[in-house]
Amino acid sequence: MHLKKVKHIETKKGMSVNDLVKEMENSGVMGAGKIAHAVNIAEEAIKTENVKVWFGLAGAMVPGGMKQIIIDMLENGWIDLFVTTGANLTHDLVEALGYNHYQGKANVSDAELHKQGVDRMYDSYMPNEVYEGLEDFFDKNFEELQKKGKMNIKEFLWAVGELVPEGVPSILRTCAKKKIPIFCPAISDSGIGLMIWGHLAKGKKLEVDVFDDLKEILDLAWNDKNKYCVWYCGGGVPKNFIQQAMQFAPEAAEYGIQITMDRPEPGGSSGANLSEGISWGKMNEKGNFVDVISDTTIALPIIVAALKDRV
Amino acid sequence: MHLKKVKHIETKKGMSVNDLVKEMENSGVMGAGKIAHAVNIAEEAIKTENVKVWFGLAGAMVPGGMKQIIIDMLENGWIDLFVTTGANLTHDLVEALGYNHYQGKANVSDAELHKQGVDRMYDSYMPNEVYEGLEDFFDKNFEELQKKGKMNIKEFLWAVGELVPEGVPSILRTCAKKKIPIFCPAISDSGIGLMIWGHLAKGKKLEVDVFDDLKEILDLAWNDKNKYCVWYCGGGVPKNFIQQAMQFAPEAAEYGIQITMDRPEPGGSSGANLSEGISWGKMNEKGNFVDVISDTTIALPIIVAALKDRV
Amino acid sequence: MHLKKVKHIETKKGMSVNDLVKEMENSGVMGAGKIAHAVNIAEEAIKTENVKVWFGLAGAMVPGGMKQIIIDMLENGWIDLFVTTGANLTHDLVEALGYNHYQGKANVSDAELHKQGVDRMYDSYMPNEVYEGLEDFFDKNFEELQKKGKMNIKEFLWAVGELVPEGVPSILRTCAKKKIPIFCPAISDSGIGLMIWGHLAKGKKLEVDVFDDLKEILDLAWNDKNKYCVWYCGGGVPKNFIQQAMQFAPEAAEYGIQITMDRPEPGGSSGANLSEGISWGKMNEKGNFVDVISDTTIALPIIVAALKDRV
Amino acid sequence: MHLKKVKHIETKKGMSVNDLVKEMENSGVMGAGKIAHAVNIAEEAIKTENVKVWFGLAGAMVPGGMKQIIIDMLENGWIDLFVTTGANLTHDLVEALGYNHYQGKANVSDAELHKQGVDRMYDSYMPNEVYEGLEDFFDKNFEELQKKGKMNIKEFLWAVGELVPEGVPSILRTCAKKKIPIFCPAISDSGIGLMIWGHLAKGKKLEVDVFDDLKEILDLAWNDKNKYCVWYCGGGVPKNFIQQAMQFAPEAAEYGIQITMDRPEPGGSSGANLSEGISWGKMNEKGNFVDVISDTTIALPIIVAALKDRV
Repeated sequence: MHLKKVKHIETKKGMSVNDLVKEMENSGVMGAGKIAHAVNIAEEAIKTENVKVWFGLAGAMVPGGMKQIIIDMLENGWIDLFVTTGANLTHDLVEALGYNHYQGKANVSDAELHKQGVDRMYDSYMPNEVYEGLEDFFDKNFEELQKKGKMNIKEFLWAVGELVPEGVPSILRTCAKKKIPIFCPAISDSGIGLMIWGHLAKGKKLEVDVFDDLKEILDLAWNDKNKYCVWYCGGGVPKNFIQQAMQFAPEAAEYGIQITMDRPEPGGSSGANLSEGISWGKMNEKGNFVDVISDTTIALPIIVAALKDRV
Repeated sequence: MHLKKVKHIETKKGMSVNDLVKEMENSGVMGAGKIAHAVNIAEEAIKTENVKVWFGLAGAMVPGGMKQIIIDMLENGWIDLFVTTGANLTHDLVEALGYNHYQGKANVSDAELHKQGVDRMYDSYMPNEVYEGLEDFFDKNFEELQKKGKMNIKEFLWAVGELVPEGVPSILRTCAKKKIPIFCPAISDSGIGLMIWGHLAKGKKLEVDVFDDLKEILDLAWNDKNKYCVWYCGGGVPKNFIQQAMQFAPEAAEYGIQITMDRPEPGGSSGANLSEGISWGKMNEKGNFVDVISDTTIALPIIVAALKDRV
Repeated sequence: MHLKKVKHIETKKGMSVNDLVKEMENSGVMGAGKIAHAVNIAEEAIKTENVKVWFGLAGAMVPGGMKQIIIDMLENGWIDLFVTTGANLTHDLVEALGYNHYQGKANVSDAELHKQGVDRMYDSYMPNEVYEGLEDFFDKNFEELQKKGKMNIKEFLWAVGELVPEGVPSILRTCAKKKIPIFCPAISDSGIGLMIWGHLAKGKKLEVDVFDDLKEILDLAWNDKNKYCVWYCGGGVPKNFIQQAMQFAPEAAEYGIQITMDRPEPGGSSGANLSEGISWGKMNEKGNFVDVISDTTIALPIIVAALKDRV
Repeated sequence: MHLKKVKHIETKKGMSVNDLVKEMENSGVMGAGKIAHAVNIAEEAIKTENVKVWFGLAGAMVPGGMKQIIIDMLENGWIDLFVTTGANLTHDLVEALGYNHYQGKANVSDAELHKQGVDRMYDSYMPNEVYEGLEDFFDKNFEELQKKGKMNIKEFLWAVGELVPEGVPSILRTCAKKKIPIFCPAISDSGIGLMIWGHLAKGKKLEVDVFDDLKEILDLAWNDKNKYCVWYCGGGVPKNFIQQAMQFAPEAAEYGIQITMDRPEPGGSSGANLSEGISWGKMNEKGNFVDVISDTTIALPIIVAALKDRV
């Protein structure tokens, strides 16, 4: 066998995250090895000019403290296309309006929290009053949004992002400002969707087309000048929507990182190993992929901190 | 303590599924106890006249052999409202067009499968040629769909379901025939979405509104004559879309069943215990809920087989 | 491809567990397919004369209501060699002394339970007073055990099992009565171990050798007249101790069933797929194995109920 | 609510692991928050004079690259008592004899590996020839071990550790050298056990008592001058053996860290949240505990690297 030896990880006082990741690379197996592999893939994808990074983010990642990391990645040009859930965008907007999420507990009385007006996402809390703020925001800005006329969801989200004032850290605002394509196919399944419904219920109009974003993302994928790196934190629609587009990329995805705690065996897309995508023509059979089995809030900060030393 | 004793499960030659579930109820703990609890909740919800069962289905459940069970539940009037992923509806339509899924393996060469034109979902296979069948179907029927004029997604899905010939077992057809509201917020994230995109790319029109389904489901929830039982197999958008609507049900959901392998600790909605919904006002704090930690393809057939003896 | 089609599972009023398992076999994929595969493997192993079933049981399976199923399997001659944890044997003995486990809840105040003298295993409870009963039992019987002289752990467990009166359902008693080899390498890590320690602390003697059981199990494995079916519910020492012995079986294990919720990716033995054992020479590369990803309290009763129709 | 806000994690070029952990502490929720909590608990436990850290290590942690981290912790006096599996000690000894583990792959032909004489632990490989080295080692040293006369397992392991030459990095050697109590109740379930069996099979004698270690660990726990911090990487016997001893600590364990990927719901000890131990009197109800849901090879290096800045 011409294999690399497992070199045991050594830790040192004051060591940098990047140095720890290099130790993990030399160890090379199990979870640690996957973290290091992910950093190497991301480094190459970001540094290689014609590689586009398409990033799918699912799970309660704004309540989970990941917002600034995502904004940094968008600002640094590390993400070329972004797909997420309506929930994350709602939480992002809620914070842009001045609200916060709070450090809570998981093993609590949800009836008591309900009485106190607190919404729980595992051990992260959000005051339910944010919905009033969201209502005010959309009351104030609904006409502005209507003026845009018929939109697809991406255009709608950019329009919302433009309403976030400069200087406020926000995923929506950053995507709008930098014109990074942002997709959220199930936007109606979110607080933002609810707010729009509130206005429609009063007879107002807002035309947002279901299928037009699909046209946009597929046009972007169908481009033989680019190579693609897919990067998923969690599964769900964000992953699947990008995977679907990769079927139209001439060489499919040649780089891939997946961070999830979902299991592959029950057969759902969220837990499926990236290699499964090879059978579909979504991933290139010679591509460089890694499945990191980890809570995103642990793995993503390590990966991004290490990348900051390298890129 | 006035607690029930754990009575050890006894199995017998020829025993019925329902009798095994009753043994599980007397045992009452861990996974077995949850299965029995789920059957009890479903039995009460289905038998109680004004309780509406809202069912969310995620994961590769048609490739996983669950189609007939879902159709039975819909036909029997056990499901009053149905939300699923675009993938499941695409697989349902694919089978309606005469194709099949196949028993495969998970530990295989995906490159080899790709060469053979086989798409893999863990250990279930689908020939990639189904896409030609789908294309033919939508080519043939696109004008018919256009004639419906502006639709929401539910109406679009009913229209597709009506195109499935009588006698063909199909979730889409059953929902259309029985006018069971069927929602799929992220329909663009699916093979069906791709087919529509194919026609839009050629300049054709099909107007499907993003937010209008939200209005429909919320109007249905906002009904003080009904009580609600939420039933989730998997998480993702199907769960979240129903949970969101439950915030508008006067008493929130008073019954709840969740079957999933996702974990709660990473904080995403898919793995969140149902009780978390109490804090949000999605679940009633006095409700009767159970979280079954199981592969749906194991738990759902047991639950439904037992229910057939009881309802 | 010459593959079998996924035939969708059909449920029927009054259907037997075995008929449901046959439906799962025709579906053939994901969790359901694995359950059916496990029943087929077990059926063949039990029916084939020279195949010995070596069964490893870990996890809180007596508190979880599995005791009678295990006793049935032992009584029926379906298990030829049994390895488990000290905890399961302690819980078995506790029930043999007249105590019970109780249906509890997982989301409770453990401080309150402690005050009430209740020990919790997820949602199964045990009154802490069982330890007094255990003490009485070993006080009364210690001399009897000493009389046996130097023992290995198997002999010690048979000796304890002989002290359980006839007619009392007990795993220990059944193994002793039927002279089924029962191993528990980490017996000191259990309530039974604590009781022995209590007597040693008072200066009494009981000689139980660490390594002698290893000799026994390896001698049993090293037998070219037998073939082996390994069957694991949970991992830990019970699995590993049998796997280790299989390295000495002339053809390694040719049948294998594993039921666990542990994941393979972190690298531990408990979650490792059975196929990994092929590399070690523990499993035969042409063997018939299945990894069932399920809570044992769900999967095992189904499998055993179906087997009762077949064997 | 007087709760701390979720402050979004910020990463920086060149940032230290400890600084990243501090960011995780300010975020405070989900997986990241648990990592930071674990570092705080460990820091306090290590710095507080009369707090004893009892460390349980399960899983393939030497093949997984964790050996040097464990040795460092032992050398630094961060671990006062160590319990592990026979497998980890065997892998430790194997490396002390000059062999290595190798970076492999999980999705491979185990039949092919077997042919090449390679044993697989997920994606870490070990050449099977190590067993010859182990045999030589015990052949050479068996008399030396016999000379010790009757031993308990701890004494046996110290005796083995003393045979490892100075300067060779080894967990066994470090425990022996520093007289750190090391327990391995199921030592017979390991390669080391097999080697001893090999000599017993030839009629040699080695007396190692099963229950005597229990006496040692309980005497250590039963000490009202000490407080205890339990620290588990993985579950199994190492966790349970320490937990059992904590029932005898006057105030039970007042600090606790658990790193595991096992789930609590199936009811086994390995996945049980630490708080469950409160009901048993193993954990102090006012104690400071955290359950980190993570692959140990990811979480442990981060925690230890951060601790090196603090202790």
